[in-house]
Order: sequence, then C-alpha cells, then structure tokens
Amino acid sequence: MIKTYQLVHPKTHLRVLSRYEIQQLTDTNSETHELVRRCCYAVLNAGNGSDDYLDLEQDYRHFDIEVLQQDRGIVLNLTNPPASAFVDDEMIRGVREQLFSVLRDILYAQDSILRAHRFDLNSSDDITNAVFHLLRNAGVLKPDMEPNLVICWGGHSIPRHEYEYTKHVGYQLGLRGMNIGTGCGPGAMKGPMKGAAIGHAKQHLRNGRYIGITEPGIIATEAPNPIVNELVILPDIEKRLEAFVRMAHAIVIFPGGPGTAEELLYLLGVLSHPDNQGMPFPVIITGPKEAETYLRAIDEFIGTSLGKAAQRRYKLIIDDPAAVAVAIKHGLGDVQAYRRRENDAYFFNWRLNIDADFQHPFEPTHEQMAALDLHKDLPEHELAANLRRAFSGIVSGNVKESGVLKVKEHGPFQLNGDADIMAGMDALLQAMVEHGRMKISGQYTPCYQINNS
Amino acid sequence: MIKTYQLVHPKTHLRVLSRYEIQQLTDTNSETHELVRRCCYAVLNAGNGSDDYLDLEQDYRHFDIEVLQQDRGIVLNLTNPPASAFVDDEMIRGVREQLFSVLRDILYAQDSILRAHRFDLNSSDDITNAVFHLLRNAGVLKPDMEPNLVICWGGHSIPRHEYEYTKHVGYQLGLRGMNIGTGCGPGAMKGPMKGAAIGHAKQHLRNGRYIGITEPGIIATEAPNPIVNELVILPDIEKRLEAFVRMAHAIVIFPGGPGTAEELLYLLGVLSHPDNQGMPFPVIITGPKEAETYLRAIDEFIGTSLGKAAQRRYKLIIDDPAAVAVAIKHGLGDVQAYRRRENDAYFFNWRLNIDADFQHPFEPTHEQMAALDLHKDLPEHELAANLRRAFSGIVSGNVKESGVLKVKEHGPFQLNGDADIMAGMDALLQAMVEHGRMKISGQYTPCYQINNS
Amino acid sequence: MIKTYQLVHPKTHLRVLSRYEIQQLTDTNSETHELVRRCCYAVLNAGNGSDDYLDLEQDYRHFDIEVLQQDRGIVLNLTNPPASAFVDDEMIRGVREQLFSVLRDILYAQDSILRAHRFDLNSSDDITNAVFHLLRNAGVLKPDMEPNLVICWGGHSIPRHEYEYTKHVGYQLGLRGMNIGTGCGPGAMKGPMKGAAIGHAKQHLRNGRYIGITEPGIIATEAPNPIVNELVILPDIEKRLEAFVRMAHAIVIFPGGPGTAEELLYLLGVLSHPDNQGMPFPVIITGPKEAETYLRAIDEFIGTSLGKAAQRRYKLIIDDPAAVAVAIKHGLGDVQAYRRRENDAYFFNWRLNIDADFQHPFEPTHEQMAALDLHKDLPEHELAANLRRAFSGIVSGNVKESGVLKVKEHGPFQLNGDADIMAGMDALLQAMVEHGRMKISGQYTPCYQINNS
Amino acid sequence: MIKTYQLVHPKTHLRVLSRYEIQQLTDTNSETHELVRRCCYAVLNAGNGSDDYLDLEQDYRHFDIEVLQQDRGIVLNLTNPPASAFVDDEMIRGVREQLFSVLRDILYAQDSILRAHRFDLNSSDDITNAVFHLLRNAGVLKPDMEPNLVICWGGHSIPRHEYEYTKHVGYQLGLRGMNIGTGCGPGAMKGPMKGAAIGHAKQHLRNGRYIGITEPGIIATEAPNPIVNELVILPDIEKRLEAFVRMAHAIVIFPGGPGTAEELLYLLGVLSHPDNQGMPFPVIITGPKEAETYLRAIDEFIGTSLGKAAQRRYKLIIDDPAAVAVAIKHGLGDVQAYRRRENDAYFFNWRLNIDADFQHPFEPTHEQMAALDLHKDLPEHELAANLRRAFSGIVSGNVKESGVLKVKEHGPFQLNGDADIMAGMDALLQAMVEHGRMKISGQYTPCYQINNS
Repeated sequence: MIKTYQLVHPKTHLRVLSRYEIQQLTDTNSETHELVRRCCYAVLNAGNGSDDYLDLEQDYRHFDIEVLQQDRGIVLNLTNPPASAFVDDEMIRGVREQLFSVLRDILYAQDSILRAHRFDLNSSDDITNAVFHLLRNAGVLKPDMEPNLVICWGGHSIPRHEYEYTKHVGYQLGLRGMNIGTGCGPGAMKGPMKGAAIGHAKQHLRNGRYIGITEPGIIATEAPNPIVNELVILPDIEKRLEAFVRMAHAIVIFPGGPGTAEELLYLLGVLSHPDNQGMPFPVIITGPKEAETYLRAIDEFIGTSLGKAAQRRYKLIIDDPAAVAVAIKHGLGDVQAYRRRENDAYFFNWRLNIDADFQHPFEPTHEQMAALDLHKDLPEHELAANLRRAFSGIVSGNVKESGVLKVKEHGPFQLNGDADIMAGMDALLQAMVEHGRMKISGQYTPCYQINNS
Repeated sequence: MIKTYQLVHPKTHLRVLSRYEIQQLTDTNSETHELVRRCCYAVLNAGNGSDDYLDLEQDYRHFDIEVLQQDRGIVLNLTNPPASAFVDDEMIRGVREQLFSVLRDILYAQDSILRAHRFDLNSSDDITNAVFHLLRNAGVLKPDMEPNLVICWGGHSIPRHEYEYTKHVGYQLGLRGMNIGTGCGPGAMKGPMKGAAIGHAKQHLRNGRYIGITEPGIIATEAPNPIVNELVILPDIEKRLEAFVRMAHAIVIFPGGPGTAEELLYLLGVLSHPDNQGMPFPVIITGPKEAETYLRAIDEFIGTSLGKAAQRRYKLIIDDPAAVAVAIKHGLGDVQAYRRRENDAYFFNWRLNIDADFQHPFEPTHEQMAALDLHKDLPEHELAANLRRAFSGIVSGNVKESGVLKVKEHGPFQLNGDADIMAGMDALLQAMVEHGRMKISGQYTPCYQINNS
Repeated sequence: MIKTYQLVHPKTHLRVLSRYEIQQLTDTNSETHELVRRCCYAVLNAGNGSDDYLDLEQDYRHFDIEVLQQDRGIVLNLTNPPASAFVDDEMIRGVREQLFSVLRDILYAQDSILRAHRFDLNSSDDITNAVFHLLRNAGVLKPDMEPNLVICWGGHSIPRHEYEYTKHVGYQLGLRGMNIGTGCGPGAMKGPMKGAAIGHAKQHLRNGRYIGITEPGIIATEAPNPIVNELVILPDIEKRLEAFVRMAHAIVIFPGGPGTAEELLYLLGVLSHPDNQGMPFPVIITGPKEAETYLRAIDEFIGTSLGKAAQRRYKLIIDDPAAVAVAIKHGLGDVQAYRRRENDAYFFNWRLNIDADFQHPFEPTHEQMAALDLHKDLPEHELAANLRRAFSGIVSGNVKESGVLKVKEHGPFQLNGDADIMAGMDALLQAMVEHGRMKISGQYTPCYQINNS
Repeated sequence: MIKTYQLVHPKTHLRVLSRYEIQQLTDTNSETHELVRRCCYAVLNAGNGSDDYLDLEQDYRHFDIEVLQQDRGIVLNLTNPPASAFVDDEMIRGVREQLFSVLRDILYAQDSILRAHRFDLNSSDDITNAVFHLLRNAGVLKPDMEPNLVICWGGHSIPRHEYEYTKHVGYQLGLRGMNIGTGCGPGAMKGPMKGAAIGHAKQHLRNGRYIGITEPGIIATEAPNPIVNELVILPDIEKRLEAFVRMAHAIVIFPGGPGTAEELLYLLGVLSHPDNQGMPFPVIITGPKEAETYLRAIDEFIGTSLGKAAQRRYKLIIDDPAAVAVAIKHGLGDVQAYRRRENDAYFFNWRLNIDADFQHPFEPTHEQMAALDLHKDLPEHELAANLRRAFSGIVSGNVKESGVLKVKEHGPFQLNGDADIMAGMDALLQAMVEHGRMKISGQYTPCYQINNS
C-alpha cells in the first residue's frame, strides 16, 4: 500500500523557491532530484538503526518526494516515508526542518557553486570561498556569537558506556553554554547533543545550537538525529572536513573507527602546516576508563607516524567530563583573544591555512588506494594527507555504496608503506574490528589489506 | 572562610520590589526572612543528593541571603551558598531563576494571602481563590495554551531502572508536545523532565514548560532540579495538592513512597466527589516491568480501601512509555472538548469540586494521627481524606523537620482502622521500606505503627 | 438598536481572573463595576473629540460591559460601544488593550490597595508604596531600561500650531530613543506620542513606550489615544501626580490650561523640598514662537509666587524642538549618573521626597477652595501645594462631573490670597480663557472668582 | 576636514561576507565598488531635500566607503558621510540598515545574477526568475503573510496638501493592518509610510513593513526615507517595475509627474495582456479635492490612448482616504481568494504575464526616443509599452545623470505619434510643469518636444 504524506514549509527557514528551482527538483531525471531524494530518505530514516546500505536500499526504492509551490510557500509530498520519522502520524519537527535544509543545500550547491562558474574549484582559495558561501546560505554563520562551537568527532558504532560518556561530556559542555557540532549519525555524534540539551535546559538556554555537518555520501548511513537544529550538507567529504575545522572553535574527539581516524589525521595534518603553528586550536581526545588502552594506541600511532609535534596539538583526558569542558573553556578564551587581536571573524576561521592536498576530493579506487605513498620520508603534512586518504578509503569500503560495490568486485583495497607505520595502522584497524567500531550491523569482513613496502 | 556571591535579578522575571517588601525581607527576625532563607537554601542545595534534614541543617547555619535594591533592579547577596549550585563559580541559570521565584512566592503569600484578610482561609471557595491568586502571581496560568500539562507524581527515592523508565515516559510525552509538572525533587520528579527536554529538543519546541510545585516544608528535602523553569511555592501541602489538581490536564503516577500514596489518595478522594463524576481527568499509573508487583499491590490497596469505582478512575500500564503517552494524549482530547463545551478555563480547573476536608491543613501530631478514622463505614471520599492524612503524617515523620523531631520524642505515630485496610496499608508500607522508597539516605526506622481497631 | 460586541482577552496582557474578581466585576451594584464601566467607556470614546461630560453622559447611559470567563481566558461583552473605537467593525487593537488595562488597574486598586488594609493610606511612606505596587502590577516598572522616560505635560485643548509643535518635539525625542509618557487625552498629550512614533520608526525601535497615566476622574474627558501602549489608571489625582514624578526621568511642559498649571506647581513644589535640592531632574518648558508670550507669563507667575529658586528648576526653550531633545538628553545623562552613584532604581524614584501635603487627596468643595491659604508668608512648598490645589479645583469645575455639578449649584469657586499672587493668577487664567485653553467644546464660563485678601 | 565614521554590521541583517565579496567591494576600480558608493551616498543623503544631481555630485566627490571584516562581522568605514544621516553624531538606525541592504543587493545582483550566467537575461522567464532571486535574497518574500502589501505610487515633488493626503491614506491603510511599499523618495513615497506608521502604532502592530523598491539610477534623487525598513535595489528600471507588480497585492496611485505616469502605463499595459484579464488586481487612483482636475486629466489621457478597457482596471476616488482603504481591503479579499484557488504564492505573483516588451531595459537615447511608435493602430499593450518608454525617457532627461547630460548636449528628446495621443500627452506634461511635478529644485526646462506624425 502506498502511503503519502504532505508537509508544509517550516516557519524557521522561510524558504520560497523560484520556478527555476522547482523545475530542477521536479525533473525526476535530474541529478538534483536524485540527490534530494536520497538525502531526504536518509533524514527520514534516521531512527532505524542500520548502517547497511543494502538493507536501506530496499525500502528506498518505494520512496519518493515531490515539491510543490502553494499559496503560502512550498509543500513537500512524500510517498512511503519511513515510519521512524513520525510520532503518532505526525512528522517529528526536527526531521521536518532537516528535509528543508536538504532542499536548501543541494539546490544551492548545484546551482550557485557547482554549476555557476563563479568559483574555480581547482583553486584552493575558491574552494574555501565556496565552503563559506555554502555555510552562509545555510544560515550557520552567525556573526553575533562568542566563539563557543565545539565540534565532537567519534564513532557512530560504539559500546553503551562510551555513548554514556559522550553524553556526560556534552552535559558539561552544555552547562558551560557551549554549542555542539557533529557529523550526524548515532553514537558519539548523538550523545554530546543529548547531554548538551540537558545542560542547556538547566542553564535555561533556549537557543542551544546542535549543528550537523554532513555530505550526500555519508548521510545515508549516518543520518542526523532530530535534535540537530542546524543541518548543513556539503557537496563532498573534503568540503565537509573544511567546514568542520573552519567553523570549530574547539574539537573533542571520542573513540571511533576509521572515520574518526580520518578526521583526526586531517585535523593534525592541517594544524601541522607552518602557517597554523601559532594559532590556538583546542583539541581534546577523551573517553571513559574502559577506552583508555584504545585511546593510548591512537596516541601512539600518531606519535609513530606524525611525530611528537603532532601529539602536542591535542590533550588526552581519560574519564573526566568536567575536566574536558574546563580545558575547552580555557582554550576558547585563547581562541577569542587571538581572533580579536587579529581581527579575525569568530564564525569562520579564514586564517587557517588548508593545503590543497586536503581540499581536493579523493576518489578511493583500488588504483588510488594502492598508489598512496605512506612513507616517513614525506613531509609531515603530506604523510598526514595520505594517511587521511587511506582511512577515507576504508570508510568508503565499509559503509558507502560506491566503496562497498568496488570491494565486492575487486577484493580488499591494498595499502603500502613503511613497516612501522603499517604495523601501527594494522594494530589500530585490528582494534577497531575487535571493538566493533567498523560497522553497526552484521559481521565485519575487512575491506583492506596492509602491506609493508 | 566566608564566601559571598552577588546575584543580579534575572531577565525573565522582571521583578522589582517595593521598600515595603524589602523591609520584610531584610528584617532578619521576621518569618518572611526565615522562610526565604530556608527555601533559597533548598534551591541552592538541590544537587547535593541528601534528604536527611539533620545533615542539611549543619551547613544551613552558615548560609545567609540579603536583598538589596540597586539602579537596575534587585540584587541578592548570598553568604556561603552550597557549591552544587555553581558551574565554574557561575551560578546555574536555572537555580538563579528559582531563587527569585522563591522571593516572589513567599512575599506574595505572606503579604497578599495570609495577612491581607482578603481571603477567608476557612472558606472552601476562598482557599481556591487564594490558590488561583498565588499561581497567577507566579505567572504559571497561561491562557493561550492548549490543555497539555501532565503532572507526574512518584518517588524521590527510586531505583535506577525506575528512574530510567520515568525518563522514557517523559521523552514520549515531550515528543507529543506535552509539558511536565512535578513536585520537584530527584527521582520520578526529575526523570520525566529530562526525558521531555530531549523530546522537546527533537520537536524543536523551545518553550517547553517544566513546572515545579512545592511548599516550604518539602522543598528542603525535595529541591527543584535546575531544569524546572517555572517554580511555584504554595504555603502548605494542601494548597500545593490543590494547585496540582487544578492545573493538571492529566496525571501520571510512577512508583513511589508514602508521598506518592498521599497524592494518589488525595486525587482519588477528590475525583470520587459526586460533582466530579462526569469530568474527564486522565490518570495513568505506570512503571517498568520490575515494578509490576508493587504497582499491582497499590491497585489492590485502592480496591480494598476505596473500592472499584476509585479503581476505574485510573489506568494501569506496565512497561510501555509510548502507550502511556498515547493514552494521555487521547485523554487530553476529552479534557479539551469538555472544557470548551463547558466554557471552562484551560489553565485552572475551577469546576473541580474539592471538599473542604481536602483543603484544610492537616498537622500530623501524635494525637491527630491516632485519631484518624480509617474505617470502611465512612463515605468513600472521607475515608480517602483520612488515608491521605495518614500518609501525609508518615511523610512528615520520615523527612520533614517537625515530624522527625516529634517521632524522635514521642515514638512512632499510631494508626488505627479496619483490619483489612490496616493490613493493606501495612503491606504497602512494608514494600516501601523494602524497596528503599522511604528515604534516600541512611537506614530506615519506621515512624509509624499500624493497629487494627 | 442594541449593538453588542465580544472581545477576547489580548495576547500581551496575559490576564486571567479569579472567580473572586469576576464576582466583583459582575456585581452591577458594586463600585468596581461602575468604575470599570465608566473608564472603559472613556477609553472606547477616545476619538469623539468632546470634553463636555454632559454630552458624553447621554450615550453613556446605553453602554454596558460584562466580563466572562471562557476556555482560553476572559472575554468582554460590550453593549453599544462607541463607534470611534472601531475600524470597519474591528476594535482598534490599542483600544482593546486599554480596556484590559482598565480592568487590571481598577481591580487591583480596589482589591489590593484600597480594601486590603496592607497600606495605611494616611502615611506618606505607605502612599508611595501603594503607588509603586499599582505601577508594578500594571507592568510599567521595567528594571532593564536606561532612564529615558520623558513625561510630557500640556493642554488637551490647544491650537493647531501648538499641536504640531508638540509633534516635532516628540519626533526629536523619538529620534534619540526616548520614550514618552503623558496624562492621556488629545492635544499636547497626543502630539508627542505621534511624533515619537515616527522618530522610533526611523530608528527601527519597535518597542517604543507610549505610556498614559490617568485616573478615573479625568479619563472621561481626557481619554487615552490608541497609540498609548501602556495605560495605568491610578485611584486619584494625587497618586497620578506621584506616579508621574516618580517614573519620569525628565519632564517637558507645553502650553496648557489649568491642568498643566496644576502639574507644574506640583512639580516645582515637590522639587523645592530641601531633600530634593541636589537631585538632577530635567524640566523644560517649551512651545512654538506664537506661544512665547504665554509661556513667559507663566514663567513670571512662577517668579512672582514661588520665586527665583523655583524658576531655576526649569529651562525655557522657545520654538526649537531639537534643542529641547538635546537638553533632555544631557539632563538624562546626569540622572543616570546620579542614580547609579546613589544605587537608586532607574524605574522608580524612591529618593524623591514628596511631602504629605502633595499626597493627600484634595476634594475641591466650595469651602475647601475658599479656605486655601495663598499668601507669600507661607513656606515655598506649602504655597506651591495650595496653588496646586487651587488649579486642581478649577480643572474640576471645568471638566469633571463632580466639579461641574457643584459650580452649577453654588456658583463659582472663591479664591483668596495676596494681591500680587492673585493678580498673577488672574492674568494667567484670563490668558487661558482667551486662548481657549479651558475646554475644547462650547463657550467657556469661568468656574472661579479671584479675590485679594 | 575629513570626517570618518565607523559602522558595525546591524543585528537584523545578519550579513557576513566572503573574502571573494570583500575583494569586489574593496577594488576601487570595480563597477561594484562605484555602484555601492553611489547608492550608499544616496541613502545617507536622503534628508537633504534636493533632486538636482549636479548639486549632489559636488559633495559626493569627497565621500567614500570601505568594507572591512572584523571579529564579529563586517564593518563599514565612511569618509565624509552627509550630516543628514545623523542625530547627535549617531547614524539613524534606519539609514544604517539601508546601507547594508545596498551592499547585499548590489553584491548579489553583480555576482549571482548579472555575471553568474545562471539566467539568460534575454529570456522572459529567466528575467522573472532573476527578479525573484533578487527579492528572495533581500528577504522580502515572506511566505507566512496574508496578501496585504499595498504599493503606493505618486510624485516625489508634490504640494503640501497632496502630501498630507498621502499620509491620511497611509493612516487608513495602516489602521487596517496593511503594509506599504513605495519607490522610495520624498512626497507620495514618504507620506503613506508615515501615515501607516501611526495607524500601525494604534493597532499595536510592531512589525509593520515599509518596503522601498528602487534601482541605482533613481536612488540618488529619490533616496529611501529612514522609515523604510526593507529596502531592495533592483538592477534596472524594468526589473524594479516587475518587482513592484509581482509583489503588490494592490496599488494606490497618487498624483505625480512623469515617473508616476510611466508606472501607471506599465501597470495598465501589463494588466491588458489577455492572460491577465481575469486576475483580480485592485488599483486605485486617488488624491485630495484640489487634485481632482489633474487626476481626471490623467484618466482622460488613459481613455484617449489605451481605451475604456484600460480605464476599467482602476477606480478613481477623490478626497476620501477611508474609502480608498476600504476599497483596497475588499480587493485584497478577492486577491487572496483567487491565489488560494489557483494555489498561487501570496508573496510573488508568478501567474501575472509580463510581456518581454515590458521587461527589456529601455535606454532613452535621442534615437530611441524619436523612434518610439506612438500610434493607435498598435495593439493596446504595445502602445502602453511605448508610452511607458516615452515617460521613462522624460524622467531620465529630468533627473537622471545620463539623461540630463544627453539633453544638455543634444537638446530635448523628440516624441512622435498620433495627433490626439500627442495632444493628450502634451496637455498632461504641461499640467505637470505647471504644478511643479517635474522636479523639486530649480526652474524647469522641458527635456522633450511633442510632435504629431
């Protein structure tokens, strides 16, 4: 039986669309339509608890979305929306708002960034400008706010006690008035927001920000929790990572899998650029008592691969949520002082130098993965860039449609590099497998093979 | 070492005081000053986790509060405020607002109700008018809202899994846009608010109401959680109970101790009045799987003592938070239809007939307790009124200063009544003792003795 | 034909009434009901342009008001409301809000001030406390605002060019972000508000305050303009005058008739009290070129009667609206500095010493008027008090029901005093008559007779 | 002496700029910089009262504007801003907001419309889409509002009594809750807004909209009044006219000069398109008693040139502001019913068919003007289009820089057409000259010559 559902445009995003835009959305053969449909499905399906794209694909086939213009604004017609988006047949407001964020961002990306020829997307400066324009259009750059956005990274597939820990940290941050940004999804992406929501409630802060930053490839398996009240969809992984680090005033990293490792390597790679040396940028790696060994292993891998300077960029705090929040708070004081001194914007870190190596999209094919140079004779930030790509490929092979299909056809990705880096990487990946950090659902078969060379 | 702390008046309660009022507050010999001091201390001390008034008394002695008038409004000077009210030396906003609610309510009660001679506090109608005036002055009677206030009752001293269950119920209520009122305190008073806060966040409801209704005798041991964003202090237990049932659009009762039993008996006693028979008033008794036996025992005790009609006034739902919320939601539809049909206010249930027996303050002395008539030949609502008083006395003997001192001096209260009622009561109290529902802290020594007569 | 109109309670005053209050309002024999009916009629009739109470009386007889409690709040039923309150059969929102202000203030005054026995209305301190409580209950004491309330006094019956001038002054005040308070009514009460509304619009100030302060005796002939968005009704003239001077941060006086003279004498009398000497209190007397002679005559009369010190309390500015606003602005700087230094509230001038002579109601009977001591051997502030009473009596004889009836019966009031004071007074009153400042409508017959003694 | 002034970004337009945009603004050789400078100067200079661009040019030379990015947003540095924008050295808030609107619109037009190649500006559909995108970016398309935007057209140079009349009409519209849009400038552009501001104040409407719609060529001589709280700058006359008629829910036309004639002819030309016949579109031509002859002359000219059908599209109301407002109100009811029935947006009239003839920019050179075909054998809407162009050329020759210079060099524009049309036009222009409707300042020398052909 076909179920349909009609949604009126929300109050908060006062969005109205031109005929031009409605045509793009209604042309069912267009790339725009398909992207919107896919991302909206992900948003609607957030509560279902699976990250196996093949499961998701089944139901997805019967889902559709249509955009209409009516007297008081736009209206969405949904066919067979997933039940988890509803409470007693009413769509959860948080979900509803997110659907309109999807429309907004995909239209803007397609129309004003990717096809408009205003930005040369091979130029580093223009990529940054494009990221800025995307974020501004999404309304997330708010000039009147103190620097208080804490980006939280960590696994979407984590054990209960780690999840509880992320809630405690979020609570302590929320009590101190900080806002939270994550990459969407369950686990360490959701816990800090729930915790912060309680902290904000105790402080009677009604305008807490729970920002989700995602991209079309990952949203299907790491869908935004309805608490997310500002959702932005960047066009690709690299622009999403750039959005994270340019919006962040501080970053907290919880235990996670290869996606978290990718984020950490990206961050340390960027911060290791000589231009960024003197810039305050608080980074805390933290987890509960039980995760101590694992976090120390990550710390060691950073030491082995990127060296002591990279390790000095973060602080490791075990099992102490209040200490995390206090450390972040002090760090934010430095950030604010620095930005004011340099006349830098609070809402977007223009000054951070992100090398083009970290900006250009990396397409993890078997050839590209095998060709990654993972040797210590590379400059630190180049090695970080390549390690980041290696983990990005593993994420893709684990949970993204394109990667999963490639691995199914050609076997695991091959990774080559110096013996000690490879050994460290192997150990880390092995630990991730053992802790179940690779995937939420099903038995895990590695999508990679580590070789010394 | 003396610590002092200065607090500027809050933005939300735009409170300004007259010289007349400031004099009352600053006269350290006045009853008003002592009441304010005591209640403010309770609010500040909310996080400390003890309900043993003798422990609390120690620190209390060094605490003081002073009210000043300054250029932009009133200012509070606190001496030795408890540390749990602060985060990094900043008072939690929720706590700060509550302090000003204390000032507001105690001044108003003293000044406009108790001493003003406007109301004849022996007249049933005038008591109701006084309750209305107190609530209106506190700003909690909001005429523009749909009937959606769910009062949650239950124990302040409950096991972890019951606490989690109250959070789940609150979450389901919050997802459906309902607001929460409780009697303040930890346990079943806090869980539903935390749950609802998450539900409201997912629905992007920024104006969720978390109403705490208390009185000076109970606030010390059941202090408001900082999530409470509307706090009202009624002058005594009976006015507080009346405030609960006149503001409630529905009531959820979780497992609890004698206080919860008192509330349930009050409610059923009131609802059993002939004038209230046709009035829709949704009441749900609910708890997790593990509490099923206990809840069934309560149900049985109601059956034994008040009979089948009383039992029909509530619905028992075991281990199903969503079902509780759905049942409440349907019930609220009936309430709204009824009030609209009768042209009754949504924000205050004037039509509910509360017999004077339930309105006059009961002072639990040994004589009064021993004199309570607990026999089945009484009309149902009179028996309910007496049973309510019996449990009220037990609460007092457990946790209130005056009661604890009396029991210390004269031994346990004596209760007399019909054998089966007394047996039921004994069994129920016994179960409460076994489950640790009597007190949070320390070993429990019964403050009562059950006798057949 | 009987017309009826039903009004739902407004959004801004979230007013809900108790049964107790509704009984008072519905008891058609009660004083409260009659006061409410009379004041509401005045509010509704604001646009009709007459100040002849006998004209008004005719239509008034057919008017009635009834208060009901309904599901979402209170509802007013109006019978035969004046047409001027409506636009296309919809009541003007400003008028609607004012009706509810009338209810609020009259109920509160009757209930909590006049009958509550909380305040000893023979004690100077208690009168001030009562005024404070009345104003607070009306919500006009706002602790978070800078001192920027400019009270404007002046005639309700003035020529066109003077009216335009009051608009220009209001505009200049509004451009500088100042708020306006007046005594309601047309003429110099309305002009500054209209001007300020345009000034506020240019400054995009959406929360401009247009405060009307009145009393039941005067409201009938000087009804609030619908621009008034905060209306307060004090119980009598003297409390209204006290409200003016305790709320004012500065006062502008335009040409006017005996009411304005009363206000000016009250103000100078109060300010001449030794305790008030050092207190900054900006007062500007101003008017257009054409009014210069008249204003100089007033200045001279003040010189003659109260002396040079009184003259130094104000500044005379002719035909220069911007200069008035700049002078006020500078004066407000002094007020703010003084209040901050003294830790005085911004929203209520507690420190101002108002002698009991200025606080006790004066009932202008023929005996009282004839008995007024208007001789120079009195202390300055006593003479000012008596002169104030003399003008108050003349206002009553001109436009108030009780006064008009008395004069009709017993002939003009007799006033006796020193020759030069009497001569000055006579000249001033003569000028008022000639300029048409006594009454808006109809030929003027003096209600007083001046005698030397 | 050089005066500089620094302006922080406003709260309401939360605007942040990318480096990309700041580069465009700071490149002093760029067209963008010059446009911004010119329009900002116009905004700042609004109060100076001249429409002689040569006068303005002098002071303009010493004016400059610079855009900086700082910690909390963008900052403007102004050199030698005109004094009329300030009150006591503080910039009027309305002016400040408008400066940021200028930045916003000019950047967006340059960047996303004119240079982005997204829109084919030769295609009628794309021009409409571009107008929509410009208006949406300016935040003026508000989906949640009832149709209540009344566009007022009329002369910027009008006599006092006509100005007063426009205020009275604005007041009656404001009392009925309608919002006002005009083309900016003094006279009939300002009056309705001032009137409506008072009407809104009486109705306690704090969110009144006073929309100014302008373009870079006209803003210099018809600068926005500071009451304008939503300012939009379209890139050219034709897009501005399209913005007017697509946003308008009704149009009121006051007496004016050639600019008003241009607007009226545009409107009637568009409405005469067969596709627009059945669409409700209330149009009122109105003025005070004194303007009756002139308005009847316009009516006659429309009859002569465009015929009876065109005359039926508007209603002529003489000297009755309330009747105008009531007629508009009824018309808006029809508009709302029609849009709802057709599922059309309230905020943008997509369905209105505007022929390409009315959309393409007309550059009034001597050749183009002489070549205009003004004969009755043309279809009605083509003749209207050409007449519109003829008046557009006269506006340019009167007050726009480019036109004034052309006429100075080559003598008056030559206009040719059918004898009766030409006679009607001549008479109308002659009346405009006599009434001083051509220019505010200085003696008027006609910039045109009428010839039969």
